[in-house]
Order: sequence, then C-alpha cells, then structure tokens
Amino acid sequence: MMEIYALITAAGRGRRIKSIFPKQFIPIAGRPLLMRTIEVIKDFDAKIKIVLVIPEEHIKLWKDLCTEFDFQIEHQIVRGGKERFNSVQNGLHFIPQDSIVLIHDGVRPLVHQDTIQRVVDKTIEKGNAVPCIVPTQTIRRIVSEGENEPLLRENLRIIQTPQGFHSNIIKLAYNQEFDAKFTDDASVLETLGYRINLVEGNYSNIKITHPADIKTAEALMVVD
Amino acid sequence: MMEIYALITAAGRGRRIKSIFPKQFIPIAGRPLLMRTIEVIKDFDAKIKIVLVIPEEHIKLWKDLCTEFDFQIEHQIVRGGKERFNSVQNGLHFIPQDSIVLIHDGVRPLVHQDTIQRVVDKTIEKGNAVPCIVPTQTIRRIVSEGENEPLLRENLRIIQTPQGFHSNIIKLAYNQEFDAKFTDDASVLETLGYRINLVEGNYSNIKITHPADIKTAEALMVVD
Repeated sequence: MMEIYALITAAGRGRRIKSIFPKQFIPIAGRPLLMRTIEVIKDFDAKIKIVLVIPEEHIKLWKDLCTEFDFQIEHQIVRGGKERFNSVQNGLHFIPQDSIVLIHDGVRPLVHQDTIQRVVDKTIEKGNAVPCIVPTQTIRRIVSEGENEPLLRENLRIIQTPQGFHSNIIKLAYNQEFDAKFTDDASVLETLGYRINLVEGNYSNIKITHPADIKTAEALMVVD
Repeated sequence: MMEIYALITAAGRGRRIKSIFPKQFIPIAGRPLLMRTIEVIKDFDAKIKIVLVIPEEHIKLWKDLCTEFDFQIEHQIVRGGKERFNSVQNGLHFIPQDSIVLIHDGVRPLVHQDTIQRVVDKTIEKGNAVPCIVPTQTIRRIVSEGENEPLLRENLRIIQTPQGFHSNIIKLAYNQEFDAKFTDDASVLETLGYRINLVEGNYSNIKITHPADIKTAEALMVVD
C-alpha cells in the first residue's frame, strides 16, 4: 500500500476577500478555514501526511493560530512561491517518490469523504484523478468577435480538488517551466501527454474566494 | 421610445430547496425573495410593467404575502405552465408587439442596475441581449468516453438574466415546439438563426437554487 500525502496549498494572499487576515485564516463557524480543511483530510484517513504550503509572511500568524486554537495535527510547513505553480513545486520537494499525493486547495473545507475516496481509488488505479461536477448554469463560448454558441451542459465539468496523482508523475510534470495555461494541477500533467481521469466531486465543495462564500460555507456546514 | 416589460418567471416548484414554501417565497433578509426581485426591476425604471408568471397553486399564497407585506407594486399575474418554456409562452401573451421585454428569473434578486442598463441598451440597439460573466473555475469538456479536455476560461461565459428581447422576435421564437435543448430564452431565439448579443453581467447576480444560496444572497446584500 502506497503512502498518501496531502499537499495543501494555502498560498493565496487573500486579495479578493477584504479582511486583515488572508482568506485561509478567516474563521468559519468559529475556527480558521485552513484548520477545517486539514481536519477534513485527516478525518478521511488519519495516516495521511500533511504538507502545508503557506506564504512566508503568514507562517508566524499560522503558528500563533495553531497555538491559540490548540491545533494538534502534525504537518510540514513549506514556504509558498510567487505563483501557485511555484508553491506546488516547493511542496512537491517534500513528497517522496512512489507515493500518492492529493493536491488540495486550503480554501475547500467542504469536500466530502466520498469525493476523497473516489479520488484516492482512481489515482491508485490510473495514476491520476480529478473530481468534478456538472454545471447547473447555462454556459456559452465565444467563437469569434460577435459570435458565440451554447455548450452542451451535460458534457461540461467544473473542476474541483483534491486532485490525486502518483507522486513520480506529478513531480516530473512540475519540472516544466511555468505556463499561463496551467490553471490547475491536471493541466500541468496533461502537457506531458497524460489523460486526466475525472471522478464525481460534490456540489458543496466550493472554493472560498469571495466574502459571501464564507456565509455560504457556514450554511452548507449545517444543511450539507 | 418603446415600452419596457419585465416578464418574471417564478414558476419553479422549489423541489431543490427543502422548505414548505417554494423558493421564490422564502424570506431573504426578512422579505420574500420574489418581492425583492420585482423591486430591483422597478428601482431601475419605475415605468417598467411587470408580468409575473407563477404556478396556479401558488397564486393564492402569493396574493396573501402581498397583503401581509403590503406589497404595492402593480403586476399582471399569469399562470405558469408545465415547463419553464410553457410558462414563458403564457407570459408572452401579455407582452404587446413592438415593445422590449426583459425575461428575468424570479430567484435573481441581486442583479445590478448597471447590468439591467446594459441589457436594455443593447436590446434597443441589436434586438436582443444576454448578460454573462467569465467563470472563475477551471472547466473541462468531455470529448468521448475517457477523454476530456480543458476549455479556455477566457472564452467561456456563464449566462444570467434578465435576457432582453424585442417582443416581436421573442414572441415568434416561442411559437416553436418545445425542445430539450432550450435551456434559456437565448437558446430559443437562436434556433431561428438570430445571433445572441452578450453584455457584462455581475458576479453577485446568482440564481438562488440551493438552501445555502439564501445565506450567500444575504451576505451579498451587505457586502455587494
């Protein structure tokens, strides 16, 4: 059985959420968001090892919060880089060969245990797995100036995290130079010619990006 | 100057939000959602005439709520049909030729005045207008069994309402038979060969579909 690591990216500087705190530290139902995210992963499997990538200027704040909230989960802290890509690169140095790594947004505390299970199972079977949902809204595509067309919603998938990978493959993929088309880890892998395996995510697994998302997340914690 | 009508569809039966009330009647910040939506349209232009399409079984409840909340805005009540398509058809019978009609989801109370203005201006100029936003998430498309590809986010648009139309054109379009590919009014028009004109929407203009959306909407009313 391969060891499983979770590489949690909390490297955003929270420019979109107006707060003195970066968004990953904002309390959600009374507890910093990032702690909830880590706890959800450990609840899935207590043996998972946590690697947390965080901007250097927030490391002291995070450690203070860990003391204040008596956060006991062991984790490796890694300094973030300039872009998300660089942050993941830094984190991958702490992931050994021949393991499974789940790369997860620190601001997605509402991922379901079932979603994580599907990602782990498919990654073990196929080498990678990405959770997704079918959009509930109508989506169109710009074809050219002044021309656009509807897309068939049932063929579209909104991509979530955690994205699971065999560590050897994703470490190799992250040896590439940064490219602006890398919007997630799957897209980094894909440029090496790998097929991406989609698994079902969960609708409540939102990325907390805007101030209103905090309220949504708290409401989802009750109803979900 | 053409007269402007708003055709507000409140025909959903609220199956997705667990409540004794259909979702369009759920209070948001203390007032039924649907009243807020109508008020936002009237705030934009008090001369706009309101046509409200509502399921027959909810008409009495709606009228009672109007009394209870002292809702004074004049509006034509129209019975909803089996599908959203049929509801819009019913509503269009009350829209005269040679006017502008804004077809708007009753569960989108957070549309900005600027968005409505852009829809009205473009509809007057081009015959139709649809507000939209660029998605903030990564979206992939299923190409075939086991194969999927990333889509360029900057070319994608999530479609919102109100969608604006010259009444003659949309009335003609709704003379068609129902087709499952009609996911919004623009798609009905498009089958007649018309080009759809996109204008900028606003991110907070969410469709209240899930229970957590109520909390999001209340939070957005504060921060937006």
